[in-house]
Amino acid sequence: MYSDKFSKDVSNFFRSPVREIFKRVDLNAIYSFAGGYPNASTFPLEQIKTLSGLVVDKWGASAFQYGATQGVPVLREAVASRYGVDVSNVQITTSSQQGIDVCARVLVDPGDVILTGNPTYLGALQSFRSYRADIVGVSDFKWEEAIQGCLSEGKKIKFLYMIPDFQNPTGETLTLEQRRVLVDLAKKYDFLIVEDSPYRELRYEGEHLPTMYSLAPEMVIHLGSFSKIFAPGFRLGWILAPQEVLDSIYVCKQSLDLCPPVFDQYMAAEFLSSGMLDKNLLKSIELYRSKRDHLLSLLEKYMPQGVSWTHPQGGLFLFLRLPEGFDSVAFYDKALDAGVAYVSGAFFYPAYTDKSKESTEGLNTMRLNFSFLATERMEPGIKLLSSLIKETI
Amino acid sequence: MYSDKFSKDVSNFFRSPVREIFKRVDLNAIYSFAGGYPNASTFPLEQIKTLSGLVVDKWGASAFQYGATQGVPVLREAVASRYGVDVSNVQITTSSQQGIDVCARVLVDPGDVILTGNPTYLGALQSFRSYRADIVGVSDFKWEEAIQGCLSEGKKIKFLYMIPDFQNPTGETLTLEQRRVLVDLAKKYDFLIVEDSPYRELRYEGEHLPTMYSLAPEMVIHLGSFSKIFAPGFRLGWILAPQEVLDSIYVCKQSLDLCPPVFDQYMAAEFLSSGMLDKNLLKSIELYRSKRDHLLSLLEKYMPQGVSWTHPQGGLFLFLRLPEGFDSVAFYDKALDAGVAYVSGAFFYPAYTDKSKESTEGLNTMRLNFSFLATERMEPGIKLLSSLIKETI
Repeated sequence: MYSDKFSKDVSNFFRSPVREIFKRVDLNAIYSFAGGYPNASTFPLEQIKTLSGLVVDKWGASAFQYGATQGVPVLREAVASRYGVDVSNVQITTSSQQGIDVCARVLVDPGDVILTGNPTYLGALQSFRSYRADIVGVSDFKWEEAIQGCLSEGKKIKFLYMIPDFQNPTGETLTLEQRRVLVDLAKKYDFLIVEDSPYRELRYEGEHLPTMYSLAPEMVIHLGSFSKIFAPGFRLGWILAPQEVLDSIYVCKQSLDLCPPVFDQYMAAEFLSSGMLDKNLLKSIELYRSKRDHLLSLLEKYMPQGVSWTHPQGGLFLFLRLPEGFDSVAFYDKALDAGVAYVSGAFFYPAYTDKSKESTEGLNTMRLNFSFLATERMEPGIKLLSSLIKETI
Repeated sequence: MYSDKFSKDVSNFFRSPVREIFKRVDLNAIYSFAGGYPNASTFPLEQIKTLSGLVVDKWGASAFQYGATQGVPVLREAVASRYGVDVSNVQITTSSQQGIDVCARVLVDPGDVILTGNPTYLGALQSFRSYRADIVGVSDFKWEEAIQGCLSEGKKIKFLYMIPDFQNPTGETLTLEQRRVLVDLAKKYDFLIVEDSPYRELRYEGEHLPTMYSLAPEMVIHLGSFSKIFAPGFRLGWILAPQEVLDSIYVCKQSLDLCPPVFDQYMAAEFLSSGMLDKNLLKSIELYRSKRDHLLSLLEKYMPQGVSWTHPQGGLFLFLRLPEGFDSVAFYDKALDAGVAYVSGAFFYPAYTDKSKESTEGLNTMRLNFSFLATERMEPGIKLLSSLIKETI
């Protein structure tokens, strides 16, 4: 009865299969390699108790009143100083997901092209698709070919969306040279880059590489998140961007939700400026490194021939490639019934998530998360998953 | 350099003059009747301290992890039970402003008509305009005339937006009969009603009237807010709506921000279910009633002939009407320089906020807030404003 009432955008909405999994099962009751959840043990519960009292005493009523749309000054300044940028280039967002969505909102009209990795973050695909963007997923770093293909068809490229550090879902990282190439392409073809880097500080080996934003601040919108360095329950992220772009985002955000959660912002500001964040981050990195190593050794031990996987230097995920013909979407129910969960890699491919296409791209892949599941439960989980895969291939 | 990169929507964005005021002055340093801020003394700081410890102890890590997109079950259930609806009809939002915005997002295409009061809430106008809706402001309850006008021009009416209780900006309330008329029009002409009621529980006299949602749950999307009954710094509101509508909003919200702030939700749930909310609300009502009465008596005492105002039964605002020809936008700088702030009523009129029109509608009106300013500062504030007005008219 409502179908004639919805906007055109709605026909392009698609549900997150990851969030649907969360509705269906209690993640704590199974071996879950599915979500992108931080490990609950990294949440500094006792410190949060102390901090919440401190925030009330120090900031009083202003922590509970409406706040500035750009974010409370003390948090904007803490972010600016941590990342070496001017405070006028910092917008606090109500989650990093909002950062992605608001970029699409202010930059994209229906039919405009967004270039993305292939695969790329599902939540970005959901948002971009909902604005009826033409999402062009690019494999094997063949960006210039894809760009020229779009231009020859008369399409308008609005931005390139990229997760340079420990990508979701593959765990892969762009080299410095690759970052430079992307930035040069943005300049050459005059489009923006949306650099989404929620896992950036979770590096377990190798050297930190510069952000694309630092290489070309006039061409890049950088998105950061407190979800992986503090806690996702405080819905907070940030945008670093040229002021003119930020100004449109700011006005948009007024009508989206007026301002980010204010108490949450003071909590994050105090957590950051007290040094607790960095101490806690070191512990998270230790934990996640050992969990990554454990998962890699378990895959080595249990996975059958014909299965390969990425070796991420950081982040929360690795990506499994199964023999051609394997259907990780169909296989999912079998795995879940047996008590083990993952996310099919297909959901991260623009082609597979496009209703108008009948693509099988990515069906022989799986994203495995290693941050959430307790370390001692990883071995039975992978053993189970491996044996189910062995039965199937 | 970025002008060719923005989406078409951006050309329709307009800044909130209210939020611009907040950037310009320290509200605590002047006599401010401007914002829609609750009084800081209504924030239960000591209870919040206690509750935050309780939430950590009771809910542990789950208060800091990602949450369900619909909201955490305990808060959805508390809202459902307070308002006598089924939990499946409840979506928690990241602020009531998000509720407004997401309705426009899932219902409106460029050019679609949204019927509104004339004047109506500025933040709704910002959102609706940003989706390039055709906003038709309706005065003097001439709804059917306006509807037939739209239909005769071949326009599609998507919904009627209405604040039935203590409207922002006028403070006026729809009678039960008027609510019935609107609901009947919605049925007759087959459009939805978005019923925005953030002030509903702040009634200082008269009897509570049924929501339009309760009169016709299949035609109405009801928006509620925790900002006026708990604290706006926790960005939380709720939507009550038919399940089919809610389902589209739910999928949209996945890509907007994944889920509402989780810790904030547990705080609100505990505040509500412990009974603290109702106790605190009684105190807020006492305070605001006395502030309203005080403002009404001050206007009576100081305002010159030719100025009239509304007598709200609740909420945070009343509306001042000055002689024809008075320009409350131009007058604003003079008032601010002298140390008193209000919001020009013009900003709440769809015509005035439409760049394509050159309307002077509402220029002879002012919105006055009576919740924010300390009671003892209201008299010098109104005395000053009145004398400035007297000099001008």
